[in-house]
Amino acid sequence: MARAPVLTSQAQDFARWYQEVIAKAELADNGPVRGTMVIRPWGYAVWERMQREVDDRIKATGAQNAYFPLFIPQSYLQREAEHIEGFSPELAVVTHAGGKELEEPVVVRPTSETIVNSFFAKWVQSYRDLPMLVNNWSNVVRWELRPRIFLRTTEFLWQEGHTCHATEADAGAYARRILDDVYADFMESVLAMPVLRGRKTRRERFAGAVSTLTCEAMMRDGKALQMGTSHELGQNFAKSFGVRFSAADGAQNYVWQTSWGVSTRMVGGLIMCHGDDAGLRIPPRLAPIQAVVMVVKDGDGVSEAAAQLVSEFTAAGVRCELDARTDTPFGRRAIDRELKGVPVRVEVGPRELADGTAVLVRRIRGSKTSTPLAGLTEAVTRALIEDQAQLYVEASTRREAATADVSTVAEAAEAAATGWARIDWAALGPEGEAILAEQAISVRCLVRADGRLPDSDDEPGLIAVVGRSY
Amino acid sequence: MARAPVLTSQAQDFARWYQEVIAKAELADNGPVRGTMVIRPWGYAVWERMQREVDDRIKATGAQNAYFPLFIPQSYLQREAEHIEGFSPELAVVTHAGGKELEEPVVVRPTSETIVNSFFAKWVQSYRDLPMLVNNWSNVVRWELRPRIFLRTTEFLWQEGHTCHATEADAGAYARRILDDVYADFMESVLAMPVLRGRKTRRERFAGAVSTLTCEAMMRDGKALQMGTSHELGQNFAKSFGVRFSAADGAQNYVWQTSWGVSTRMVGGLIMCHGDDAGLRIPPRLAPIQAVVMVVKDGDGVSEAAAQLVSEFTAAGVRCELDARTDTPFGRRAIDRELKGVPVRVEVGPRELADGTAVLVRRIRGSKTSTPLAGLTEAVTRALIEDQAQLYVEASTRREAATADVSTVAEAAEAAATGWARIDWAALGPEGEAILAEQAISVRCLVRADGRLPDSDDEPGLIAVVGRSY
Repeated sequence: MARAPVLTSQAQDFARWYQEVIAKAELADNGPVRGTMVIRPWGYAVWERMQREVDDRIKATGAQNAYFPLFIPQSYLQREAEHIEGFSPELAVVTHAGGKELEEPVVVRPTSETIVNSFFAKWVQSYRDLPMLVNNWSNVVRWELRPRIFLRTTEFLWQEGHTCHATEADAGAYARRILDDVYADFMESVLAMPVLRGRKTRRERFAGAVSTLTCEAMMRDGKALQMGTSHELGQNFAKSFGVRFSAADGAQNYVWQTSWGVSTRMVGGLIMCHGDDAGLRIPPRLAPIQAVVMVVKDGDGVSEAAAQLVSEFTAAGVRCELDARTDTPFGRRAIDRELKGVPVRVEVGPRELADGTAVLVRRIRGSKTSTPLAGLTEAVTRALIEDQAQLYVEASTRREAATADVSTVAEAAEAAATGWARIDWAALGPEGEAILAEQAISVRCLVRADGRLPDSDDEPGLIAVVGRSY
Repeated sequence: MARAPVLTSQAQDFARWYQEVIAKAELADNGPVRGTMVIRPWGYAVWERMQREVDDRIKATGAQNAYFPLFIPQSYLQREAEHIEGFSPELAVVTHAGGKELEEPVVVRPTSETIVNSFFAKWVQSYRDLPMLVNNWSNVVRWELRPRIFLRTTEFLWQEGHTCHATEADAGAYARRILDDVYADFMESVLAMPVLRGRKTRRERFAGAVSTLTCEAMMRDGKALQMGTSHELGQNFAKSFGVRFSAADGAQNYVWQTSWGVSTRMVGGLIMCHGDDAGLRIPPRLAPIQAVVMVVKDGDGVSEAAAQLVSEFTAAGVRCELDARTDTPFGRRAIDRELKGVPVRVEVGPRELADGTAVLVRRIRGSKTSTPLAGLTEAVTRALIEDQAQLYVEASTRREAATADVSTVAEAAEAAATGWARIDWAALGPEGEAILAEQAISVRCLVRADGRLPDSDDEPGLIAVVGRSY
């Protein structure tokens, strides 16, 4: 007996599927102010796990967390010309506070390069203070005309890193280290999302940066999502804000800088990269709950056996929860866990218990297996490892299949209808990029012919990867 | 040879000492917008440790984290009369965004009862959904006329919890559980700060609450600091926002609610409760770095021996750091660690190494002891435990000595010049409270005669604890 589908299928309407899964898996709601969002407990638990994993990696590079204010004087943003030009259409401005009109309006931070640099100018004195590596977890505001939950929201949560270095080479190496060791490593090994590492074209660069490195992922509908960026700022902000240091030889030099960020947008990427018609599929390494032990039906010793399994799994290092809410129909509870993407369900009832088994349901591959209680902990831990790998392989295979090598702008546009196209950057160039832009297709990044991250924007033989994007 | 003091002494000018220690220990800076602050890495590391400890305790009560938006429609705040009256003088208002004037101005959240309740109205349907327990770590804005860093800032970081319960008794029990098991337990066992648990008078209650429970701590200058509060909201917000549930018997009832919060203000409390004329003293259980191994001077095998100690301490569970920056004078490094309040320093140089010893410096009791390398790990872990207790005992003793039992308003005012006074609430009453208020003295809380938290504001025999406050 087929049950009615819980969600619109991805094939039928991907955008609608996305909205529905967010609502039904209780990830988030739209806020009352246009473009804002409420992140509900399950969505926030996913974000907290992301934060923890990213934060550990940021700290391992030597950066320290700090907090910079939400409010920035309007005049600060104007000091770097490209920066203000890029951000001014998106600013939210506080004009009244404490019952009065303010003398100088303050801007709600869209990003913090300006205010951070006003402090770097005080804190950086000598080469001994370098590198100075700080990171800030915070909320930022960019007024969005076409908001889309998690992907483009007026307010979003993120981390923004800001660093000062003595030399251009040090800054470049650090920007790259963040991309590789923090972002790409996290996305590939924890989110199970293959990401393309490349350089943004001038058109797509961060406002105020001299180069932008990016991690791009392919969603299940073939579109690209920019998952995180790491910028070299050169000495642009250092000169605008006077961030100088005395070198070992006594010279006064401007610092070289980087900035970099990932945000709650990654939650949207996770949904659209791994989700299927039954809901989310959360990679086991990320999942706030990796396994849920569900009491199918009450009966002699069932709750005790279920609780015992939870202790065994927990002792084996599995993030685990007991679901003994037998006053709610089992089917509803099972669908809820499926929607929420919990990697493993272990179902126990009187019948299973009598057989000395439980049913092991693996959300990622969709299998159901009766498994002896004795070997269950091992089966669960093995499933978590295998299914983490499985998700990565699936996403890689899909990306591979949906990427075409092309040689003309027309072919690139055609390929971008369903996926990505690879085309010689020398052949495409800024002119071809502008033509594609008219069709809402962009150069996601520039890579080497072998797909790897180039050392500079000027390397010969670069390939442009183009596609539609969120 | 006495060295020049690094800080103004507490006895000479406590307020100045406070500002100086914050600057010199590199905890925080004032932001460019009046009343905002930049929390520097050492200050933020302390806050992160506080967050982790509080967060673990909040989760242990069954609450889950979520995120509610920064921006609240102005109309939401107006729905609860006392609430808007209490907060409207402090609001920051966004009137322009995306280059246009907004149709309805939005308020930057001063607290989130209104917006949270607009969602509870959707999420709470049945008694099965109760209790609903959510917590939000975020930044809030209250425009301050007399800002003071960490204590009263225009923007501050905090957590705010919001809960819905089926009965008044459940709500009351949960508000109290937060006060006891989360706030007081954290403050006493981690911050090593004795706190008085009591009930706020009507005059001091949160705007919109039916009762407010508080944790009050005494600072070294005898003033009180409100460290955290837990409110019973009754059905005030539930009625304003229509938060109803169908009970098991089918009746439609309004929920009973609580809200509760602690903030970066606790960092200010920590500084003023434990700091001394040499700087901060951070309790070992809180300290981001519990022990620093300092290379006094380079020499054969010194760095290796220091690194070895760091591994041994780390293996014993001590949060530990190596300081081998011998290009900076040792005295400067030692003063810096003293200012920052790192609980234990272990100093190793060629001379100590030749003797098979190191110097163990305990910041909290100010002792320096030559200690055999062989027993060092045990000496360090014992020092951390002992000095945690020591700080608590010192603060308790100080509070005890600075609290007087009095019987008239005049005596209460006199005692409040240097500490706290205890006076019968029946004798003082709202009239006496108003008289004291004219002298900037307030009733910090109402307690039982034995100092414990009363069950209600109407218990007979309550004692008012009065004092000046931050």
